[in-house]
Amino acid sequence: MTITDRAYMAEALGLARRGLTTTTPNPMVGCLLVRDGEVIGRGWHERAGGPHAEINALRDAARSAGGDPDSPGAWRDAASGATCYVTLEPCSHTGRTGPCAEALVQAGIARVVYAMEDPNPEVSGAGFMRLREAGVEVSGPLLEEDALALNAGFVRRMTRGRPWVRCKLAMSLDGRTAMQSGESRWVTSRRAREDVQRLRAASCALISGVDTVLMDNASLTVRREDWIEAPSEGELRQPLRVILDSNQRLKPDCALVKNASPILVVHTGGELRHEWPEHVEHIELPALKGRVRVEAVLDELGRRGCNNVLVEAGATLAGSFLRRALLDEIIIYMAPKLMGNNARGLFDLPVDKMSGQLPLHINDIRAVGQDWRITAVPDMDS
Amino acid sequence: MTITDRAYMAEALGLARRGLTTTTPNPMVGCLLVRDGEVIGRGWHERAGGPHAEINALRDAARSAGGDPDSPGAWRDAASGATCYVTLEPCSHTGRTGPCAEALVQAGIARVVYAMEDPNPEVSGAGFMRLREAGVEVSGPLLEEDALALNAGFVRRMTRGRPWVRCKLAMSLDGRTAMQSGESRWVTSRRAREDVQRLRAASCALISGVDTVLMDNASLTVRREDWIEAPSEGELRQPLRVILDSNQRLKPDCALVKNASPILVVHTGGELRHEWPEHVEHIELPALKGRVRVEAVLDELGRRGCNNVLVEAGATLAGSFLRRALLDEIIIYMAPKLMGNNARGLFDLPVDKMSGQLPLHINDIRAVGQDWRITAVPDMDS
Repeated sequence: MTITDRAYMAEALGLARRGLTTTTPNPMVGCLLVRDGEVIGRGWHERAGGPHAEINALRDAARSAGGDPDSPGAWRDAASGATCYVTLEPCSHTGRTGPCAEALVQAGIARVVYAMEDPNPEVSGAGFMRLREAGVEVSGPLLEEDALALNAGFVRRMTRGRPWVRCKLAMSLDGRTAMQSGESRWVTSRRAREDVQRLRAASCALISGVDTVLMDNASLTVRREDWIEAPSEGELRQPLRVILDSNQRLKPDCALVKNASPILVVHTGGELRHEWPEHVEHIELPALKGRVRVEAVLDELGRRGCNNVLVEAGATLAGSFLRRALLDEIIIYMAPKLMGNNARGLFDLPVDKMSGQLPLHINDIRAVGQDWRITAVPDMDS
Repeated sequence: MTITDRAYMAEALGLARRGLTTTTPNPMVGCLLVRDGEVIGRGWHERAGGPHAEINALRDAARSAGGDPDSPGAWRDAASGATCYVTLEPCSHTGRTGPCAEALVQAGIARVVYAMEDPNPEVSGAGFMRLREAGVEVSGPLLEEDALALNAGFVRRMTRGRPWVRCKLAMSLDGRTAMQSGESRWVTSRRAREDVQRLRAASCALISGVDTVLMDNASLTVRREDWIEAPSEGELRQPLRVILDSNQRLKPDCALVKNASPILVVHTGGELRHEWPEHVEHIELPALKGRVRVEAVLDELGRRGCNNVLVEAGATLAGSFLRRALLDEIIIYMAPKLMGNNARGLFDLPVDKMSGQLPLHINDIRAVGQDWRITAVPDMDS
């Protein structure tokens, strides 16, 4: 594999990333077609049900060559003999679209360079087999780590049936999220809150606790008006809002429910206490010590095709996820201020000795407006 | 002033910084002599009682020209007609060394470029006057902000009679400094603790509370063995260790006292309860609600010639400095770990509404080993 191969694959990963807020439950995939040192087609997967990245790249090549983007003959005319850089193994099954491996063969692609295999153990390798059978050279993996990181949620769901779980928190420099009274508007600045909108838009579901929803009268939506540079309407997805409400304390007259995008209320049983509008679904899941088992929630969301979930919760629920080793990533917005030791902390953890502390890796610290965003992952090796 | 002038002054500031741990109570000063585009002499002030930066630069010039570094005649032979870049206004008084302005005049210096005036209002401008009277061209200030920052402590003491106050804290990502029991060894890694040694060595005095000293059995010294790359013996200074012990709870048999460098115990009155070795001095200062007034401590340290003090204390004492707006700089070492909401916090502050939070400016965040060092200043404008 040459440095040129790496450069093309890096561009294909960049194309894939354009589907960040739209492809779910499908993975993000990018594809670049190159012939004689020239990029002749670019494509990425935009949304489930739409064409895969490879097909969009072939269409782009045909269009650029003056052909009909919908004609497989024009694909062949434009792309025959080309190398295809694709961030995920081409599919070999006929789903909502035809198999991409077959389309690449028919178009006369000479070589396929891939970043990662299909993580679904049931189909992994089948796309490569079809390509090799037809005489196409297949090389990879290339930039696999980047490709795996880009689709961490999809990979997690395919391999373990659960989504990738991020927890987002906003705190002062001294680690406080709210006043003792619960008052918390605003810990961070507008730029940081806009960044949270991006996180939400890249999530399939948000998980929050009923206490947080009631305290903040939060609607937990992606709001274009909070966005300094908003993407176009079609690129904004409303994630499923999942509220853990073990004892059914949520009422229909809150801001959350007023917004018509879907809500899933998880409780531990009993008759529903209110009449609910159609966009609010209730499910009963197993309890542990009177509270919904968070593992059961993640399993349910995995079944529903959620790749990425974002936990936006107080110290109790966030601590509960953390204690059970269910957090894959912690994203903290740190504001340059002090709130003092009476204010509320980040995570309820039952630690009373230094040996019990939870080690993390800090992967990234960067300025977001006047605040700082810290990305950390639990350090499983320690 | 040209870009060349700036470059020379930047080098002079670099020379000044070499005195970081040794010049106190004097300021750090650097000096560069340049003639015909060539640097002919470099000097900096090394320690109180020793030659000033200008004299050291003249000596360096004489030595480089093959002359006697102690002969004013050789200074003139080497440096006549040169430009002198000096980070602080040359002195005009005869202190422990002769007046530098006079020495520059006698050496035939044609032009003096300075970074900042002498901050002592009683002598400010006198050095320039002497130079101008003798026909020397004087230009400045140049890179004044850097020069003021370099000697913030000296400037503070000269203008307000008090030292510059830094507060150093070590915390987990969730803002915790110790377990509920007080156990705190170690929050941060060895690299961060070495960095603290540097902070200590650059301080004239450390201030701590008796609780912290008793809890940690801390010696509060600069330890070469904690230093991965230690400076040479002569460059390591032991700061005065100031312990706020309002009710005389400190005993002579602790690690602090075992180390023979000077200790100042501040209490609020009463007979001394123990026999103390000679390096331990006790003073009585005014109390406020049964505790030593921290303002009185700073005034006392200003009188004793302390330019920079480092507060290493728990949440109560650190909070007390912060509440009274006595902290100029907060340096936090943040470890990549979580200690949970039962652990001790950073600052005791009586804040119970978001409007009461304390705004900061974060000036710097950087990695120190696996930890992160955050430098913040209280935001006085808000």
